[in-house]
Amino acid sequence: MFKNNDFIYIEYSVTLKDTGELIDTTNEEEAKKANIYDEGKTYGPKLVILGENRLIKGLEEALYNFNLNEEKVIEIPPEKAYGERDNSKIKIVSLGELKRQGITPTPNSILRLADGTTAVVRSVSGGRVVLDLNHPLAGKTLIYKVKVVKVLENAKDKINALIERRFTSQYVSKFNIEIDDNKKTVKISIPKDLYLLDNLQLNIYALAYEIINYVLADYTVEFVQQYTKDVFSGK
Amino acid sequence: MFKNNDFIYIEYSVTLKDTGELIDTTNEEEAKKANIYDEGKTYGPKLVILGENRLIKGLEEALYNFNLNEEKVIEIPPEKAYGERDNSKIKIVSLGELKRQGITPTPNSILRLADGTTAVVRSVSGGRVVLDLNHPLAGKTLIYKVKVVKVLENAKDKINALIERRFTSQYVSKFNIEIDDNKKTVKISIPKDLYLLDNLQLNIYALAYEIINYVLADYTVEFVQQYTKDVFSGK
Repeated sequence: MFKNNDFIYIEYSVTLKDTGELIDTTNEEEAKKANIYDEGKTYGPKLVILGENRLIKGLEEALYNFNLNEEKVIEIPPEKAYGERDNSKIKIVSLGELKRQGITPTPNSILRLADGTTAVVRSVSGGRVVLDLNHPLAGKTLIYKVKVVKVLENAKDKINALIERRFTSQYVSKFNIEIDDNKKTVKISIPKDLYLLDNLQLNIYALAYEIINYVLADYTVEFVQQYTKDVFSGK
Repeated sequence: MFKNNDFIYIEYSVTLKDTGELIDTTNEEEAKKANIYDEGKTYGPKLVILGENRLIKGLEEALYNFNLNEEKVIEIPPEKAYGERDNSKIKIVSLGELKRQGITPTPNSILRLADGTTAVVRSVSGGRVVLDLNHPLAGKTLIYKVKVVKVLENAKDKINALIERRFTSQYVSKFNIEIDDNKKTVKISIPKDLYLLDNLQLNIYALAYEIINYVLADYTVEFVQQYTKDVFSGK
């Protein structure tokens, strides 16, 4: 049994109840076998902070009732996944209009429209195109096979996990974290390699927010950058 | 007499030797009177770090030989100001070509060309336009009336001056600077109001560079940001 703000790692595979089709998994081999491997994705156990609401509702709710190393199969209906299908999101547009936008629709392809939304092409005939603006998984019941493989217990591990989620893993070990429970302070030194990273400041700000919200609410989180001559001489 | 890395404040007015025309001044009233007032400019004494080479060569060289509160009039020839005029930078282009770029040139106007360079239009006639790509002050001898009005003596004042040059003045007093000469460290706390400033990180990096180069070469410069719950609750 877990509670709000617990840091857990899960492994999962999701299939559609209708067809049994595998649509997502944390297991790289399985993804490759099912032809859904995505180079841009990181495979392996995935960090979940309970209460952060980054997962679909049905999965996050279920996780509170797991124990460490427990594996369960859970069925998640559309209202706790990607919502019911909404027929008012099916639009008929003219083929000519799409072509003027530089789009040549073919059935079952996914389009990005001029306003930035995505749509699935349901049919093309007689100069008319039927577009479905529902989420591709709307109306689907999902079957999750989930296992909780790790639970983080101490604050330092949790902060490291937050850093790892935000920065490329090669830098994680270069952060230095000092927690002082008497003074209620966390001091985090930022690695010199990151001083010129795009968006470093936004990442610092967001990391501070996460530490205070999910790990050490009443602490002062201090971020430190140290410059010496060497930083600028390329040494 | 000043030396490299001295922080001095100067007041100046510059006129063209040829015509006596005032072209720049640190005095707001004088600028307004001469119709060269620029809203985007900050008037008043201007920080100069000797050796930083932000000024034209002739002025910077001369400043080493000033004393505090001394005022001098110095004449700076083109080769120590904006360079000699280079006749190869005078180009003849067709009026039609400029019009195709959406430019309608009139004599003495300043154009920004397609490649980003600026040019002065010398003449327009018979479908031919004479463009001068020299700096508008190239070939000019400048007369500077300059006074050194302040010299910074201690490191903390110098660091404050660098902060003031880089951040809006309303924030300067909110920076906290602690110098420890035994440990050879400078610790600078960044005001919370700046945590979401665009380019904060680049400003921190540049400030560290300036402190190490011009103020405390062998020190470690530490920048600190402190986050508590209040930062995120808008209090």
